[in-house]
Amino acid sequence: MQRTHSSGLDPSEVEDLRLRTREFIRGPVMDAEPRPGQALNLAVRRELGAAAKVAGVYAPHVAREYGGQGLAVEQWSGVFQEAGYSPIGPAVLNCMAPDEGNMHMLALLGTEQQKRDYLLPLAGGEATSCFAMSEPHPGAGSDPEALSTTAAPAVGGWIINGHKRFISGAMFAGFVIVMARTAATENAPAGATMFLVNMDTPGVTLGAPIHTMDRYLPGGHPHVEFDGVKVLGSAVLGEVGRAFAHAQLRLGPARLTHCMRWLGLARRAHDIAMDRTNTRNIFGSHISELGIAQDMIASSVIDIESSDAIIAKCAALLASDPKAGSALSSVAKVHCSEAVYRVIDRSLQLCGGDGVSDGLPLAQYLNEVRPFRIYDGSTETHKWAIARRATKSRRQSVEAGEPFLGSVRFYEGGR
Amino acid sequence: MQRTHSSGLDPSEVEDLRLRTREFIRGPVMDAEPRPGQALNLAVRRELGAAAKVAGVYAPHVAREYGGQGLAVEQWSGVFQEAGYSPIGPAVLNCMAPDEGNMHMLALLGTEQQKRDYLLPLAGGEATSCFAMSEPHPGAGSDPEALSTTAAPAVGGWIINGHKRFISGAMFAGFVIVMARTAATENAPAGATMFLVNMDTPGVTLGAPIHTMDRYLPGGHPHVEFDGVKVLGSAVLGEVGRAFAHAQLRLGPARLTHCMRWLGLARRAHDIAMDRTNTRNIFGSHISELGIAQDMIASSVIDIESSDAIIAKCAALLASDPKAGSALSSVAKVHCSEAVYRVIDRSLQLCGGDGVSDGLPLAQYLNEVRPFRIYDGSTETHKWAIARRATKSRRQSVEAGEPFLGSVRFYEGGR
Amino acid sequence: MQRTHSSGLDPSEVEDLRLRTREFIRGPVMDAEPRPGQALNLAVRRELGAAAKVAGVYAPHVAREYGGQGLAVEQWSGVFQEAGYSPIGPAVLNCMAPDEGNMHMLALLGTEQQKRDYLLPLAGGEATSCFAMSEPHPGAGSDPEALSTTAAPAVGGWIINGHKRFISGAMFAGFVIVMARTAATENAPAGATMFLVNMDTPGVTLGAPIHTMDRYLPGGHPHVEFDGVKVLGSAVLGEVGRAFAHAQLRLGPARLTHCMRWLGLARRAHDIAMDRTNTRNIFGSHISELGIAQDMIASSVIDIESSDAIIAKCAALLASDPKAGSALSSVAKVHCSEAVYRVIDRSLQLCGGDGVSDGLPLAQYLNEVRPFRIYDGSTETHKWAIARRATKSRRQSVEAGEPFLGSVRFYEGGR
Amino acid sequence: MQRTHSSGLDPSEVEDLRLRTREFIRGPVMDAEPRPGQALNLAVRRELGAAAKVAGVYAPHVAREYGGQGLAVEQWSGVFQEAGYSPIGPAVLNCMAPDEGNMHMLALLGTEQQKRDYLLPLAGGEATSCFAMSEPHPGAGSDPEALSTTAAPAVGGWIINGHKRFISGAMFAGFVIVMARTAATENAPAGATMFLVNMDTPGVTLGAPIHTMDRYLPGGHPHVEFDGVKVLGSAVLGEVGRAFAHAQLRLGPARLTHCMRWLGLARRAHDIAMDRTNTRNIFGSHISELGIAQDMIASSVIDIESSDAIIAKCAALLASDPKAGSALSSVAKVHCSEAVYRVIDRSLQLCGGDGVSDGLPLAQYLNEVRPFRIYDGSTETHKWAIARRATKSRRQSVEAGEPFLGSVRFYEGGR
Repeated sequence: MQRTHSSGLDPSEVEDLRLRTREFIRGPVMDAEPRPGQALNLAVRRELGAAAKVAGVYAPHVAREYGGQGLAVEQWSGVFQEAGYSPIGPAVLNCMAPDEGNMHMLALLGTEQQKRDYLLPLAGGEATSCFAMSEPHPGAGSDPEALSTTAAPAVGGWIINGHKRFISGAMFAGFVIVMARTAATENAPAGATMFLVNMDTPGVTLGAPIHTMDRYLPGGHPHVEFDGVKVLGSAVLGEVGRAFAHAQLRLGPARLTHCMRWLGLARRAHDIAMDRTNTRNIFGSHISELGIAQDMIASSVIDIESSDAIIAKCAALLASDPKAGSALSSVAKVHCSEAVYRVIDRSLQLCGGDGVSDGLPLAQYLNEVRPFRIYDGSTETHKWAIARRATKSRRQSVEAGEPFLGSVRFYEGGR
Repeated sequence: MQRTHSSGLDPSEVEDLRLRTREFIRGPVMDAEPRPGQALNLAVRRELGAAAKVAGVYAPHVAREYGGQGLAVEQWSGVFQEAGYSPIGPAVLNCMAPDEGNMHMLALLGTEQQKRDYLLPLAGGEATSCFAMSEPHPGAGSDPEALSTTAAPAVGGWIINGHKRFISGAMFAGFVIVMARTAATENAPAGATMFLVNMDTPGVTLGAPIHTMDRYLPGGHPHVEFDGVKVLGSAVLGEVGRAFAHAQLRLGPARLTHCMRWLGLARRAHDIAMDRTNTRNIFGSHISELGIAQDMIASSVIDIESSDAIIAKCAALLASDPKAGSALSSVAKVHCSEAVYRVIDRSLQLCGGDGVSDGLPLAQYLNEVRPFRIYDGSTETHKWAIARRATKSRRQSVEAGEPFLGSVRFYEGGR
Repeated sequence: MQRTHSSGLDPSEVEDLRLRTREFIRGPVMDAEPRPGQALNLAVRRELGAAAKVAGVYAPHVAREYGGQGLAVEQWSGVFQEAGYSPIGPAVLNCMAPDEGNMHMLALLGTEQQKRDYLLPLAGGEATSCFAMSEPHPGAGSDPEALSTTAAPAVGGWIINGHKRFISGAMFAGFVIVMARTAATENAPAGATMFLVNMDTPGVTLGAPIHTMDRYLPGGHPHVEFDGVKVLGSAVLGEVGRAFAHAQLRLGPARLTHCMRWLGLARRAHDIAMDRTNTRNIFGSHISELGIAQDMIASSVIDIESSDAIIAKCAALLASDPKAGSALSSVAKVHCSEAVYRVIDRSLQLCGGDGVSDGLPLAQYLNEVRPFRIYDGSTETHKWAIARRATKSRRQSVEAGEPFLGSVRFYEGGR
Repeated sequence: MQRTHSSGLDPSEVEDLRLRTREFIRGPVMDAEPRPGQALNLAVRRELGAAAKVAGVYAPHVAREYGGQGLAVEQWSGVFQEAGYSPIGPAVLNCMAPDEGNMHMLALLGTEQQKRDYLLPLAGGEATSCFAMSEPHPGAGSDPEALSTTAAPAVGGWIINGHKRFISGAMFAGFVIVMARTAATENAPAGATMFLVNMDTPGVTLGAPIHTMDRYLPGGHPHVEFDGVKVLGSAVLGEVGRAFAHAQLRLGPARLTHCMRWLGLARRAHDIAMDRTNTRNIFGSHISELGIAQDMIASSVIDIESSDAIIAKCAALLASDPKAGSALSSVAKVHCSEAVYRVIDRSLQLCGGDGVSDGLPLAQYLNEVRPFRIYDGSTETHKWAIARRATKSRRQSVEAGEPFLGSVRFYEGGR
């Protein structure tokens, strides 16, 4: 497989891009933020996107040949955190889910034609997209193997039938990458296959939106129905029957970019709380001088720094050993999603009554990040996977000769 | 100041040293471990130390010219974690507190003569040492500024008077680095000064040991009295009056090496628990297949990986920006000391009744690491420092032009 | 002071009232619940209130002579928890904040005339009320002593000036109990005084509402301005200058009834989660059979039972020793507000993607209870008060002869 | 079954007994405490026991006819907490595990002859006992059904064979209550049976002690072997084949008395910490005035009060509805064992370096209570049982007509 992502920038270029991103976000982007709980206006998004291109900060993760800034995956974190400092930053810079993950996958798996037709307009902000994996119970949810949408071979292509839901971004998407079950053929195993499908293809119907507690993404997370949708053979993304493996290519980095962006928002919340505690008096002191508040602030710093560190470790591993990196992304995802939630919760708490009002954006931030403990694999699902990997790996080590440490040896006599 | 630590090894050499250290620890060192709660026999330590020199794994953090393996600070972590996998590993490899921190400080601050006289035998394991800062209440404890031991100028040198306690390693030490308050002179500010003092100097008395819940370090943490102790001017380590600043050079890396070593022990405890849960049945399943156990195992993996990551981040920063690295070492210390304790506590819990018995070493491990949440600055003291730094830094950023985020803006009308 | 609350019911009557309340709530009230995030329609409230009177479950905490069911404070918990099982239950049963606390205070402090004019219509649901203590920073917030609203004596009465905010229920209130600073007089100390003020009194202006993350209480928590508001001397509730002491009478029980009601909602969330985990399959099992889910369910049971127990302990103490009960209400408030939040958070998590959608009410429940960790004294403010009381009490015990336990006694010799 | 426990004392008598117990413990008992980590000297125990009889505080839970103070189970908590304030208090007052639970069971199940032969000397302190249920893996541990010790009918009695371990108190016990598997007979189901066996019966061998981290109970927790041990038919305690049901009679109250005693010790640790923080200065303040310390102190108060409350709730339920009380004792056990550990851990932390030394008893207290999170059913085992009961109970409620709450209802249109 061709490496289509650039091999990255020099360290000084990365730092320069981070600082320019910071300046752009803390200037025009923060000035344009909607009030808490309101989605970003699409016209504003377009306008700011144009300014981001001029400022040379647009699509930081995309290769330069497709109009991006050319960062390698291990260089994303600092820049994505700066983008996430504003809840609308990632959308403005076109590095938001689900488009960002789709760009990543198109770059890794797409044919040249697919890149021209889908990656190029997506990277440039002329199109938006969505990713259709989740299904209503008892279909694919926490357990992807329960996939019930199907694609059957037809003359010149495939026919897709199924029902998806929680399809973030579908309302405004130009195309969708849909996962469907496919039977074994001579050349392909039984499994799942990914298809690139334009949203205006006959048989694709946008269903009812699902209102969720997060609000910044325009259009919610609707149902999408596929009813006898015909697509050409060239609509297959990657290889037939290998979509579960392909999806891993997307999921590891996609999990991690969520961590990066939300960590940026946690830094924002933390700064809001520090600006309050640095200026509010209570019982004759600045709140920031009271020990209980200091304990909360320090706990947030520890959460932020440890999240930043595990993201860096995981991103480096994704670059050098994608399979190990993907496994570690479960660890990073659980740690960061829980840590980010705690940081915003503490920040809200430090702001007292104003914290729960829309006079500050913290209550909305809390609602934005709460779902992150569930989507892209819930904390519990990941923990289950982490434990299984750890115990299996340890068992194999012992079988390979590591000393077995589980034996009990009692000692006689006094101690 | 001369950079006496080597500039480190090639990445492949570091990995090779780590693997050889791993082999050495998991072989002869683990075979020689005393039963839970017993201190390492000094003869065994000497013998294993000789073997470690032969194996080329002795004193990994010491420059090659002084007999070590020449790792740079940002390369220590993997090797120190391997050492810490056995509770006697760091002592055997001569990278244990307090000697390891003293070597680091001698390398950074010592004169050539001091390095010959003190660093060389210390690095080679011919001498051991201790570091005398803590004092009985109300002297220097969590608040180093309360230092009450004094050193007064005398003909040809200094006279030291004071009472120290919790002086780990003093019982078998050949020399001590003692901190004492010194008055301002023409050339030096009022403050504190560090002195290299042989333990057999007249006036140095080893006081009662303080029995603590940790047991592996031979000799406990005794009191040491300095009663009119005369030393030459050449006994000053570093500069007169600058001991608090010098101590920072020691404390940042020393905190971090504690994290590394104890993280190694946490990995050991975690492996013990996995070997048990992989082989014990309860209610018809391996314990490792039960969800509540999986939750605990996964939580331990997350604690281990996030600790590893923050250590790596902090070590790299200590190498590139010692002051920022020292500040971050507070964050790393709190996160790792709490995480390590949790990992061992969970591992013990997973082993049930055997876990609290001395049939497994976990109860003793728990007692070994509990004090780490207190010494080298308690969790609470560090949190206080972390919060103060964070709020001060944020205040300065706002003063320098960052947007102030603490203002409340209420919106009228419906939502 | 006359004891106007009834001395309560027989245990069997209490249990009978609880069961009838349960039936009423789980029947007509739950059928009439608005969709998540919508406030209760006032006409529906009135209609259901009438039905509650017929069913003999209306105003359970109010003396029978004022139209209530006559429960004593130590008998409230079971019934209030049943009411709180529906987010609109307490409003329907007229035992919701702030009216419930105002009824309690009017019963304890009101003159016969005040009871006829204010308590009677309030208890019967013909009027609603609000309580005006909080002010914008730097006025009365976490620190009530910072009260800046004033009442000055005038011919035949008082003139009130000030600015209040977070005045829950003000939008639809018929009258307000307002706290204002009053100067010392011959007969009264300097301090604060409470006044009963009709909301249509000239000079009372309803300010902008403050939108908060909770949504069920109609009308939000607006600002209220008092601009030269003239009231008669008979408007004083309780004694002049003693409002801070009087407020304690309200705050202890009011804190505890919040705990009761929200604990009822936590039970609802927990039942939702159990109904899901009892019927949803994942990886081939009901979720309720998976260990990680069982750990969460058990943790919620523990939170619920310990909250129920501390409420019972505190309510009994409020009845037998109001001062001690008020102190303990800080403990109960912190424990319950945090526990209730955790229960709802876990319940949401157990429901996965549906949990964060408005297909289930859990995201809204989470938003309803989040502010409870802040209002009526934040967790941190109460902890500060709890710690100060505990240390003061211990200091006094030691001074009164209890053995002092803080001395260190080191033992020599082996262990 | 005859109710052999007295129906309890008047409330004022209970309070009087509590105060006299308090005085006795805080006087002569605390004066006689051994140094940290040392077991109570048996002669001292006997001497103090005699004094306790004189003071009228001995065996508070035992009926007066057997020499005790006659408290009913719902009256134990206050007195047991006072006893537990000293780690040797329960042994001195003869209300310590395992004797206390054995007395309870003998009182409930014993024949008049058994009571005379076993309960009377046990209650009077002339004999001690042990309870033999646990076995080495894969026998009875967390899963009692795995019981492998057997009792076979023989002429005039039974022959017992098996291997027990973790038999607390066996070293000095006069008799043991042993659980063994028995086959079905005409009159009895297959199951387990309890036998009263004198420790000097031929075939009973005391095996190696198991050293555990707790130290106050003399003799550790040894293995006990039963090798062809012949006992008469009159040795059966309770009914043949019903030992698992009988054991529940013991386990519920026994769990709860552990909670009571350890809660007393947690109060001791908390008092030690408050005496320190009330007298130690750091950074110019008493530690008790520093916010981070206040947060810890308040958290401990909350843990103590909520533990006290859940114990009271559970004890009352054990008295009125033993089956429901036994189920709730799982909740109380998990909450209290974790809370008590946290309180002692925090108290140790507040005492800094002295806390981890044997200059204060806190490190030992931590080691005493750590096993309580495992024995009598580990936290995880109880959580599993709690969750299963909760989900089953909810399922049954729904089947019986409670509204099912797990359905998702999505709303269309704007929010």
